[in-house]
Amino acid sequence: MALSAGFFYFLSFIAAAIAFLFALYLYLWVNKQKVVNSKIIEVSKLISEGASAFISREYRILAVFSAVFAMIILLFLPTPIWEGGVWDNISMTIAYIAGTVLSAIAGKIGIMVATLSNGRTAEKAESGLKDAFLIGFRGGAVMGLLVVACSLIGVALVLMLFGDASIILGFSFGASSLALFAKAGGGIFTKTADVAADLTGKVELGIPEDDPRNPAVIADNVGDNVGDVAGMGADLFDSNVAAAASALVIASSLSGAADAINMVFCYMILGLISSMIGIANARVGKNGSPTRALNASTYTTTAVFLVLTAIATALIEGFSWRVWGASSVGLLVGVIIGITTDYFTDDTKPIVQRVAKASSSGPAFTVLSGVSYGFISALPAMVGIAVSALAAYKICDPIGEGYALFGISMAAVGMLSIVGMIISNDAYGPIVDNARGLAEMGGLGEETIRIADELDSAGNTVKAVTKGFSIGAAGLTVISLLGAFMSEANAVLSERGMDLITGFDIMNPAVFFGILVGASLPALFSAMLILGVDRNAERMVAEIHRQFDTIPGLREGKTAPDYSLCIDIAASGALRELIPAGLAAIIATIIVGFIGGPSAIGGFLLGNIVSGLLLALFMSNSGGLWDNSKKYVEAGNEGGKGSNAHKAAVIGDTVGDPFKDTAGPSINTQITVVSLVSSLLVSVFVSFSIF
Amino acid sequence: MALSAGFFYFLSFIAAAIAFLFALYLYLWVNKQKVVNSKIIEVSKLISEGASAFISREYRILAVFSAVFAMIILLFLPTPIWEGGVWDNISMTIAYIAGTVLSAIAGKIGIMVATLSNGRTAEKAESGLKDAFLIGFRGGAVMGLLVVACSLIGVALVLMLFGDASIILGFSFGASSLALFAKAGGGIFTKTADVAADLTGKVELGIPEDDPRNPAVIADNVGDNVGDVAGMGADLFDSNVAAAASALVIASSLSGAADAINMVFCYMILGLISSMIGIANARVGKNGSPTRALNASTYTTTAVFLVLTAIATALIEGFSWRVWGASSVGLLVGVIIGITTDYFTDDTKPIVQRVAKASSSGPAFTVLSGVSYGFISALPAMVGIAVSALAAYKICDPIGEGYALFGISMAAVGMLSIVGMIISNDAYGPIVDNARGLAEMGGLGEETIRIADELDSAGNTVKAVTKGFSIGAAGLTVISLLGAFMSEANAVLSERGMDLITGFDIMNPAVFFGILVGASLPALFSAMLILGVDRNAERMVAEIHRQFDTIPGLREGKTAPDYSLCIDIAASGALRELIPAGLAAIIATIIVGFIGGPSAIGGFLLGNIVSGLLLALFMSNSGGLWDNSKKYVEAGNEGGKGSNAHKAAVIGDTVGDPFKDTAGPSINTQITVVSLVSSLLVSVFVSFSIF
Repeated sequence: MALSAGFFYFLSFIAAAIAFLFALYLYLWVNKQKVVNSKIIEVSKLISEGASAFISREYRILAVFSAVFAMIILLFLPTPIWEGGVWDNISMTIAYIAGTVLSAIAGKIGIMVATLSNGRTAEKAESGLKDAFLIGFRGGAVMGLLVVACSLIGVALVLMLFGDASIILGFSFGASSLALFAKAGGGIFTKTADVAADLTGKVELGIPEDDPRNPAVIADNVGDNVGDVAGMGADLFDSNVAAAASALVIASSLSGAADAINMVFCYMILGLISSMIGIANARVGKNGSPTRALNASTYTTTAVFLVLTAIATALIEGFSWRVWGASSVGLLVGVIIGITTDYFTDDTKPIVQRVAKASSSGPAFTVLSGVSYGFISALPAMVGIAVSALAAYKICDPIGEGYALFGISMAAVGMLSIVGMIISNDAYGPIVDNARGLAEMGGLGEETIRIADELDSAGNTVKAVTKGFSIGAAGLTVISLLGAFMSEANAVLSERGMDLITGFDIMNPAVFFGILVGASLPALFSAMLILGVDRNAERMVAEIHRQFDTIPGLREGKTAPDYSLCIDIAASGALRELIPAGLAAIIATIIVGFIGGPSAIGGFLLGNIVSGLLLALFMSNSGGLWDNSKKYVEAGNEGGKGSNAHKAAVIGDTVGDPFKDTAGPSINTQITVVSLVSSLLVSVFVSFSIF
Repeated sequence: MALSAGFFYFLSFIAAAIAFLFALYLYLWVNKQKVVNSKIIEVSKLISEGASAFISREYRILAVFSAVFAMIILLFLPTPIWEGGVWDNISMTIAYIAGTVLSAIAGKIGIMVATLSNGRTAEKAESGLKDAFLIGFRGGAVMGLLVVACSLIGVALVLMLFGDASIILGFSFGASSLALFAKAGGGIFTKTADVAADLTGKVELGIPEDDPRNPAVIADNVGDNVGDVAGMGADLFDSNVAAAASALVIASSLSGAADAINMVFCYMILGLISSMIGIANARVGKNGSPTRALNASTYTTTAVFLVLTAIATALIEGFSWRVWGASSVGLLVGVIIGITTDYFTDDTKPIVQRVAKASSSGPAFTVLSGVSYGFISALPAMVGIAVSALAAYKICDPIGEGYALFGISMAAVGMLSIVGMIISNDAYGPIVDNARGLAEMGGLGEETIRIADELDSAGNTVKAVTKGFSIGAAGLTVISLLGAFMSEANAVLSERGMDLITGFDIMNPAVFFGILVGASLPALFSAMLILGVDRNAERMVAEIHRQFDTIPGLREGKTAPDYSLCIDIAASGALRELIPAGLAAIIATIIVGFIGGPSAIGGFLLGNIVSGLLLALFMSNSGGLWDNSKKYVEAGNEGGKGSNAHKAAVIGDTVGDPFKDTAGPSINTQITVVSLVSSLLVSVFVSFSIF
């Protein structure tokens, strides 16, 4: 069976449309679940409003930022406008704007549905685990479906309208801009609120976690949505689009370009279909385990994708089994990375228990052992990415010139094929976390809280896995972005009749220079975000103190605090602290490009990927490890709550919070932003560089 | 003036002989200083015996390890013995053994003189700062002179006797083997004792730091000598030899090989002479500052070296100004790295004060801010190394083929030219630290303790600088080792008529695979060392508890504890914990080599250097930062001793101890070991590799 490109565009739109309808159905299903408890309605409304307020504020700032970037793109990219090619610049600008807008829409709707689901999940928990789980999961699945459908439709539209794969880089850069704000900004927001609420609530005032007297408590709940629903969604939208963009750029330069491009679209479509099947089948028995249910759906999606792509490869003319092999390797390695991450962060496994044990010697040992195991935990994922890149390359190399790199990019596409399912799992986390808080605030009784706890705990376990997965996907994606960068650079060089780049030799001092500078960037970027959380939390702590000092009756619970002021501090501070970090990344790229030209940029990207992966894995995993060690101690081990081990574990958890929810996962976005800025500016670097 | 190679060998021996005589003079001068206080004599003897006992034990294990390696070298290196070239294998084995023995002798004598100087420094402090400083400094300078003289003589002898620069790699590997034991083993020893002494003494029992009732107090003092005198000395011996070895290997392959080799020796000789001049001029005025005195000698050495090498370049035929430029760039960048390190760790500068301020919000903030600034602190050094490599390359590239790489290796030689001075400054640290403890135990009165404190504080400040310097030097050295590795690989490949390696392209999947695996190794290695310290400290804490529980009158100070058991635990544990970490590094290298061949190893070395530099700088600097923040709080800031900020700062310091004194500085050695194993095994990897 031979199929045309038009057919796959058409299929992409059909698949996306089905996904939209499915998401609409899930939304309506969630919406019709009843919520009657007035306290839950009230608090849930506060959370929803707070989240919307932050999102609007973020989007307003982003709009200014995007407008500036859109102007720059219009003037300079892909080539300076005065050198001709005006239409290309306009196309790129439109693609860029479309990238930000589509990602923004997915984020906005996703967060709306998530904040709609939390109260409903809490109330449904009164009648058992089964339906409550479904509400939480389906609420999150809306975000998952929207992200994948929007990225598919966006990529297909851009390629169909402009007919040039490199314009998709503009779309991808739009997605990255949004992800930088959503992930890093959301990460600062959520940890500001979390740290400030814990510091003042649990430590100073001795009130429980979700106590409504604490002015930061709503901000904390808002933060979960803002960081994990909108942030993670935007991050994976970004990775997904970047993977597709680099695969398409590389595919366009191949001898069998048409088939290769069709394969990329076909795999993306089948990934979306597999995710829908996985989502539709997610359910938990009456006394079943929600963790198992979530994992089972992930495995279903994986298996369905492998089978469907195999069928497509068998039926469609021009589709290669080697490419199928590369994509399957990517997906399987993604799953393996998830499982090893789980080993380091699951409290039924030895590592978490050892850190809990170390905590009984004091907080320094909590920190030292957590850092050590965090360092070690990076190894399997790094080796996994290395092996999958090597395997994909070797599998596809015999097809023909350029196919080896295409194989790596298809490994990334394969790893990201189940992203719809991954986002659904991830967005489930904050919904049930919120639900637990709402069940407590609404006074729903012990049994309901126990059920909410069980749902929440599954969310935490799965979150660690999805984080490992998304870092792995970003790693593989960026390798193919490096390939895309080389393609772009060579396109510019050949146009000007200059020598082509055949590779980036580490013995070339410009490359080496780039590598060292690139490697220090993720460290700088993370440090700026963590210090940003510190500063912002300090501001919020001051506000909480002010409210307790000046609002009469607050301490006794007779009057309500002013939640909105805390939300305001979290929101404005997050965006203020984020901007220097984002600019530092972009400016460093530009400086390196102007000093060393495309070779230095190649090295810079590599150094950035390598140290970025290492630090992201280290920080995400040690953060998850500390969090679960604390929970393990709180479950009555090593002396339980109130023991010295518990005090130490709480300190570990506080250190881990910005590690795992702010800096660690934002490094992905930093890497993608830097890669895209490099690809976009390549013609400028070719023209003006010192060496 | 045209000079022969023989002339430079001759000069090397003369210079080394003068350095030995100078060291002997310093030893005799220190030895004739009187020490009369019986308590000081007693404790000082315990420290000296403990240090000797550890060193002997370490050397015994090392002897077994070296014997095994010597056999392997004899059988396989540089080529398997059954392929002929028996004489080469014997030469390499002899060189290897010479490397371990010479480094061991320097370490043994250095530690002997250092433990001789501490008591004398303490007693002299009674009559003022001036002479006490001189004893401390001159005691350390013996180690500095011996290290440089031994490495010079060793390198010259090996080249003169065997006439083949690549045999020097065997000598260098011997030095690395020893450094791995001395630095990482010493690092575990010292922090085991320090952490255990602090945990039980200050925290549990509430007795002061150097209280003689604490069974771990002598082990703690022994540890300072073992870690900072023997360990740092062996580390810099290793770096110095590795820099010389790689410069000589590269020099041998140049068109102007004879001149290039002469230049390497000439620069090393002039470095030794400059260090002697710097050491001879180190003194402090009656009310002068010891920190300033140490820094002034370093700057003197730097200036003298720059002038002497300029004169040599002007006078000697065949010496190139470009090479002088590269070497000067290396030296100046080394000094700049030292200064930036100082900015991050000096308590009169803002960073330390900010971390102290963050501590008042609790230990989590001490850790978070320290980690963040530690991350940031890596940037200037990484950029400095990148820029110096780029500059050295560009300066020397016009001389001819291969000279660019030679320029980089000469930048490393230049940076290490003042190593004699650096080691002297570094070894001064533990001597005056011990002296402070002895002054307290000997009851020498407040004014003497104040003077000892001032000497000690200078030691701490200078230590941070020397650590930054040694990491920078290792970074640059290893770049040139990468070049040496390529030369070695090509020698093997051309012998077999195979394609030569022209570089390591990061788009080559084998290289990329190597990079990712190489980058995760330093994280694994550091984690294993830190966990080793944790486990070992636990054992020692148990022993301290046992002594307090079972020795009657110990708590009241009526009976003495059994110091030797604690020393024993520190020693045996250190060596036990070290071996798996060292083996992991060597085995990883071998696996990568067998999978991906020389290309993967090239990537592996690069990944290892990049992440190794980043982590080493991060850990050394954040450790120094926490240490000095604690001292800053103890000086009465942020509430002073006993405040919440102080408690938090103590936790930060405990986290920082294994960071800065065990893991951070050991990474250097890990990198050198891995580089040398790679260079040595290159022919094996060429013969047997999967890809």
